[in-house]
Amino acid sequence: MNFKRYLPILQWAPEYGRSQATSDMVAAVIVTVMLIPQSLAYALLAGLPAHIGLYASILPLILYALFGTSRTLSVGPVAVVSLMTAAALAPLAEAGSPEYVAGAILLAVMSGLMLTMMGVFRLGFLANFLSHPVISGFITASGIVIAASQLKHIFGIQASGQNLLTIGQSLVVSLGDTNVPTLLIGSGALLFLVFARKHLKPLLIRSGVGSRLADILTKTAPILAIVITTLVAWLLQLDTQGVRLVGVVPAGLPELTMPSMDLGLWQQLAVSALLISVVGFVESVSVGQTLAAKRRQKIDPDQELIGLGTANLGAGLSGGMPVTGGFSRSVVNFDAGAETPAAGAYAAVGIALATLFLTPAIAFLPQATLAATIIVAVATLIDLPALGRTWRYSRTDFGAMLATIVLTLVHSVEAGIIAGVLLSIGLFLYRTSRPHSAVVGRVPGTEHFRNVLRHKVELCPKVTFLRVDESLYFANARFLEEAVMDLAACEPELKELVLVCPAVNLVDASALESLEAINERLKDAGVRLHLSEVKGPVMDRLKRTEFLSHLGGQVFLSTYEAWQALTGNQGPLKDAA
Amino acid sequence: MNFKRYLPILQWAPEYGRSQATSDMVAAVIVTVMLIPQSLAYALLAGLPAHIGLYASILPLILYALFGTSRTLSVGPVAVVSLMTAAALAPLAEAGSPEYVAGAILLAVMSGLMLTMMGVFRLGFLANFLSHPVISGFITASGIVIAASQLKHIFGIQASGQNLLTIGQSLVVSLGDTNVPTLLIGSGALLFLVFARKHLKPLLIRSGVGSRLADILTKTAPILAIVITTLVAWLLQLDTQGVRLVGVVPAGLPELTMPSMDLGLWQQLAVSALLISVVGFVESVSVGQTLAAKRRQKIDPDQELIGLGTANLGAGLSGGMPVTGGFSRSVVNFDAGAETPAAGAYAAVGIALATLFLTPAIAFLPQATLAATIIVAVATLIDLPALGRTWRYSRTDFGAMLATIVLTLVHSVEAGIIAGVLLSIGLFLYRTSRPHSAVVGRVPGTEHFRNVLRHKVELCPKVTFLRVDESLYFANARFLEEAVMDLAACEPELKELVLVCPAVNLVDASALESLEAINERLKDAGVRLHLSEVKGPVMDRLKRTEFLSHLGGQVFLSTYEAWQALTGNQGPLKDAA
Repeated sequence: MNFKRYLPILQWAPEYGRSQATSDMVAAVIVTVMLIPQSLAYALLAGLPAHIGLYASILPLILYALFGTSRTLSVGPVAVVSLMTAAALAPLAEAGSPEYVAGAILLAVMSGLMLTMMGVFRLGFLANFLSHPVISGFITASGIVIAASQLKHIFGIQASGQNLLTIGQSLVVSLGDTNVPTLLIGSGALLFLVFARKHLKPLLIRSGVGSRLADILTKTAPILAIVITTLVAWLLQLDTQGVRLVGVVPAGLPELTMPSMDLGLWQQLAVSALLISVVGFVESVSVGQTLAAKRRQKIDPDQELIGLGTANLGAGLSGGMPVTGGFSRSVVNFDAGAETPAAGAYAAVGIALATLFLTPAIAFLPQATLAATIIVAVATLIDLPALGRTWRYSRTDFGAMLATIVLTLVHSVEAGIIAGVLLSIGLFLYRTSRPHSAVVGRVPGTEHFRNVLRHKVELCPKVTFLRVDESLYFANARFLEEAVMDLAACEPELKELVLVCPAVNLVDASALESLEAINERLKDAGVRLHLSEVKGPVMDRLKRTEFLSHLGGQVFLSTYEAWQALTGNQGPLKDAA
Repeated sequence: MNFKRYLPILQWAPEYGRSQATSDMVAAVIVTVMLIPQSLAYALLAGLPAHIGLYASILPLILYALFGTSRTLSVGPVAVVSLMTAAALAPLAEAGSPEYVAGAILLAVMSGLMLTMMGVFRLGFLANFLSHPVISGFITASGIVIAASQLKHIFGIQASGQNLLTIGQSLVVSLGDTNVPTLLIGSGALLFLVFARKHLKPLLIRSGVGSRLADILTKTAPILAIVITTLVAWLLQLDTQGVRLVGVVPAGLPELTMPSMDLGLWQQLAVSALLISVVGFVESVSVGQTLAAKRRQKIDPDQELIGLGTANLGAGLSGGMPVTGGFSRSVVNFDAGAETPAAGAYAAVGIALATLFLTPAIAFLPQATLAATIIVAVATLIDLPALGRTWRYSRTDFGAMLATIVLTLVHSVEAGIIAGVLLSIGLFLYRTSRPHSAVVGRVPGTEHFRNVLRHKVELCPKVTFLRVDESLYFANARFLEEAVMDLAACEPELKELVLVCPAVNLVDASALESLEAINERLKDAGVRLHLSEVKGPVMDRLKRTEFLSHLGGQVFLSTYEAWQALTGNQGPLKDAA
């Protein structure tokens, strides 16, 4: 048993010194200041009481510090996973009800178990089937749905829905009930946060503040908005004006919670938990890899699954909600100088202190302020120009991306992501099932062979060279049969056919049968089949079969050798078996 | 509108002459003699009254002659499709009941519609997802199930079941009820057919019969068995001895039948009809292609779909059952000298005459004789050595094949084929998601580069050449990131990394993002990324992006150029952007 693999803390803890501890603590203070409003806001987004977000930011961070391999990833509630949590729980119970909270806890536990199992069985590669265009389209569409879902808090109205259509309809219906004090708080916070994000840093720098400090101060804007609006709400007793506040939350640290053992509930949430796990893992790993590479460190994706899995188990068992590594917080943690996962553990201590001592103040925090912080945060997730970039690069990728976006917007996050995955697999299979192939000829005076349609090349009427630009497997085996037999049917003079194979990385059993069939059919038609530039592993495998002894022609190491042998001398090189 | 594409008869009919007509008619007589017992037997196998098999061998053959592209394919009931028909209908109604017959007719109509639609929309490639090992395993397992299912007729007992377990159990339970006269007829016919298949031809040749005639006489063995056992049953009045006979069948040609319009029934049969369509199409096309190639003709798979589709529509509308191109009959048709699809139409006339005049005699035909012809026919389908061949060639193909066989035997034909298709797609994706890659070095004194682990090659500590043997797409994009970053993390001296890409046939949007990420991360780590031997179509696509301007290094036409430029001169070739 390799303890260092399963407990990465053993890799760095023995050399942990004072300078690292100082760096980690500074980073932890900054991350804690960011994490408090984000935890509260994302709990609200998930339809949960705000303090659940804090609960999910204590034990999970400590567990990730033990089991995770990224040195700078900041684990906790994040926007997209919170939206997916809300979408999974909406059909089960009313938002905020005890059944709903129990569902969130169960989702965290199930997701934790799934991630841990995937890590133990090294199934991290499954996440690869979420292609970049699908995940990028999914995050963009989720960002739009999240922003739309928060507008009700800004206007102080009731609205519901899991997609843009239902949310929009519901908003329009109740727009007449707008609560003006809420709208003032909400839009004020929104304007302040947008201003802070766009103009505060340059302004501070012009006022003589150092660039690094200006950066950190800018990041504290959400906490400033929270402090100010909370004070205003408390002083003006805005709850009597119909402004919805976070309300009294239980003081003290979370207690150990047992997840529901209702098997029906487990079944109902299984697909959602799997999607939350995979999406959370993909987001987390790509942040982790980007940051690790900047310091020539590396992360182990399979161990990351265990790190995120135990973090989610911890979240569930301490009454929290599903968590993962967040992009913006991790970047802040990295920039603030965090050197080891201990920074995350210190941030957990910060959140624990907040849970112990700040909860009375949090009661007066307007929900509209949290909604404003969410809207500003998710605005950065929305990347519509990516649609254009993908369209220009690849129509098939664009198709998968568009399907994901449209289905996420008009149906649900789950339908969007499932459609995206299935469509991208289907399109890939379709693409490889119609491989590019080209008749090639010799570039005069050289040993190189090029496509006859693109280049001026030498040909020989009795010998045709066909290059196949794809691995040969069941989905395209018959395609190859047709391509070859078409050639043979069109060129009655043909005597020798050379399959040029440098791009054939695999010949599966179906393709082998096709090659056998092609060989036999060509023999019947008086044509010999040759191969050239067959790769080592492919050749090793062919040698285990009888194909090479049936082959009418020869296997040439290079296409030029085949050219010399077949065009120079039309006589029999080898008897057809 | 291209009439010749959609009505292939226009391609050959104008030049149809007397010599072709003579050849076609001779072939038609021989095929008719084979087709009569097969039609009756496969109807029985499908759980249908025997005359339904004759109905399915008249109109479908004429329609295929109009719309099909194979000149020698013999369309009609075949064993595997008949078994699939039985499996689809077993849950719906009792075998032989009017509802059951209506179900078979609907299956033929639905399968006809699906095939025709697939042909019109050129979806023939979908059939390619049935890999050779899956179809071969499926046919072997179906052959075993079919043979087992016919034993009840040989023993004259009642038994039922859709898989080997249920059939076996049911046989064992009722073995005590064996009807001795039936067993005598059944085993006698079986022995005679086995003897005829193995020894009749050599015996005839030794008796001075010409080889060709001996071949044809051997093929008439089933009709001989039928004639003799029918006479015996009639003379000895075996029906009074408990021997089950085919019984009275309606005389005369089939009438136009309207399929059921019960939407619930359509839904229930949809998956079965699709599987029957695809399996039938794959079987038919592979026979058709093999025979066409022998005469340097070709068939058009998309038009074949239309040919088989209209044949099945015709089968359904004339009260028949699903049909497809049969292997053994087509080979006989070819060998007997059929030159055009008109031979099929002439065979249809032969079957129509049989339907008009032979039905009184068919009433006395023992079912045990038909069961014997089925068992002997499907025995040739069972290819267990294919398991060994596939195992030796490829473990993944073997896995898909074994899963198909086991599920078909112990569960059902539909479960077997669906599992086989899903497993082979899954295994292919898994295989491409972990591509082969190798660090390569220069073979001393040449321009060739080979795997450092397999060959003695030159290396340069600051420059690494990594060859990737797979298209780069979403499922393996992150794998590439990991492979490259592992390299960079392991070799602290590394300054230049060259990705050698001759086998990269595709770089999708996900892989492009990964290349961008790799490039940025390597830059952060002080390493420049270069590419070499990028294929034309891949390069065209990369040129449409900003990747090439971000690229830290260069794109080299050949790996040797990269070697010369990078190892000869370590200085900056191009400023990192």
